[in-house]
Amino acid sequence: MPEPLSPTDRTTLRRYPERGRTDRADLYAVLDAGFLCFMAVVVDGSPRVTPMVYGRIDDVLYLHGSPVNQGLSAAKAGEEVTVCVAHVDGLVLAASLYHHSANFRSATVFGVPRVVTDEAERRAAFRAVGDNLVPGRPDALPPPTVKQLASTLMLALPLHEASVKVRDGAPGGEDADYEHGLWAGVLPLVQVWGEPEPDPRLREPVPVPEHVTRLIGASAFR
Amino acid sequence: MPEPLSPTDRTTLRRYPERGRTDRADLYAVLDAGFLCFMAVVVDGSPRVTPMVYGRIDDVLYLHGSPVNQGLSAAKAGEEVTVCVAHVDGLVLAASLYHHSANFRSATVFGVPRVVTDEAERRAAFRAVGDNLVPGRPDALPPPTVKQLASTLMLALPLHEASVKVRDGAPGGEDADYEHGLWAGVLPLVQVWGEPEPDPRLREPVPVPEHVTRLIGASAFR
Repeated sequence: MPEPLSPTDRTTLRRYPERGRTDRADLYAVLDAGFLCFMAVVVDGSPRVTPMVYGRIDDVLYLHGSPVNQGLSAAKAGEEVTVCVAHVDGLVLAASLYHHSANFRSATVFGVPRVVTDEAERRAAFRAVGDNLVPGRPDALPPPTVKQLASTLMLALPLHEASVKVRDGAPGGEDADYEHGLWAGVLPLVQVWGEPEPDPRLREPVPVPEHVTRLIGASAFR
Repeated sequence: MPEPLSPTDRTTLRRYPERGRTDRADLYAVLDAGFLCFMAVVVDGSPRVTPMVYGRIDDVLYLHGSPVNQGLSAAKAGEEVTVCVAHVDGLVLAASLYHHSANFRSATVFGVPRVVTDEAERRAAFRAVGDNLVPGRPDALPPPTVKQLASTLMLALPLHEASVKVRDGAPGGEDADYEHGLWAGVLPLVQVWGEPEPDPRLREPVPVPEHVTRLIGASAFR
């Protein structure tokens, strides 16, 4: 049985505590619904935030990139990181400007990442990141070369201290806000995949593989 | 004439410098194309990152929220922040896993925000944030009350030190990657607005206003 998320001071919501989720399954759902995270880390005393892709295996989040990336280097050196993933599902157009909001699902993970040095784990993490972009694609491609693996900094962040926040449904606000009779409601926002654009360097026409058409059909973001 | 972006050590791209943009108009374009930013700040020695909406007036980015928000409070107290806005335009499915990437437009802004205390600027900033969600909606609604304004922490971040990064086009990689003959290319990703969902608290049926239908029609995210 997976444990619930660890409650700490910084994972405790100060506003709208009813939007919080403490079930580990909710954390996995938010992470698995996306591929882009924002990693914050302190570099030379200043906060940095870097958008990057990620993958998940069980209760570990994998982050990777170039060893010259300042944020990843700082994390490699033992700096704590905070990783945020957020999906906006719609704009909440309330009857008053003050109560405007967004419907969203977000997850924030805190911790000091571990540098992944084990060859098998590095390969598995590489695949997990690729699978999180397009499930099945790493299986269809040759594995990374030794040189490619060696030039990649791979970090593992345990999914131990995390918070999950969800807002959905209709606008909030005071009853008096509705006196002026202006339209209010939710404007949904969805991400959809477009038509695949073949790489001009392909040596001959190649059909779009099933793992790509499956992703488009799965509409993971709807 | 607006000045170009200020080049500093942390706005200098270490990898793929050809993806950098130094024209101020490119910064504005990335910011104005979205509404969600990720603000990083140091709280109690730890990096925090918070998703929030924003607005822009000329060369100032406005951020707002509750005074009990830890990140905003730290910024109010004089902590430096870093704000990142990123739009993913597609997945770059290269012929090798290692060269997988994303097409994106991102902007990162560094600085110490100023607390906005002037009443007129506070009102203008409030409108700017609303206009950045749905252009024209603040005009259609009563202005925030004095109490609502007073309970909002409003910060102004000058758009002085910033970097802009854009990747577009076909996958990269080695010629040898194409030997296995697997499909490669770009899978575009677009955000689209759904059907507006009326607030159940509306006292009578109200037509969807023009500022909402215009936004949906404008397809700002395509």
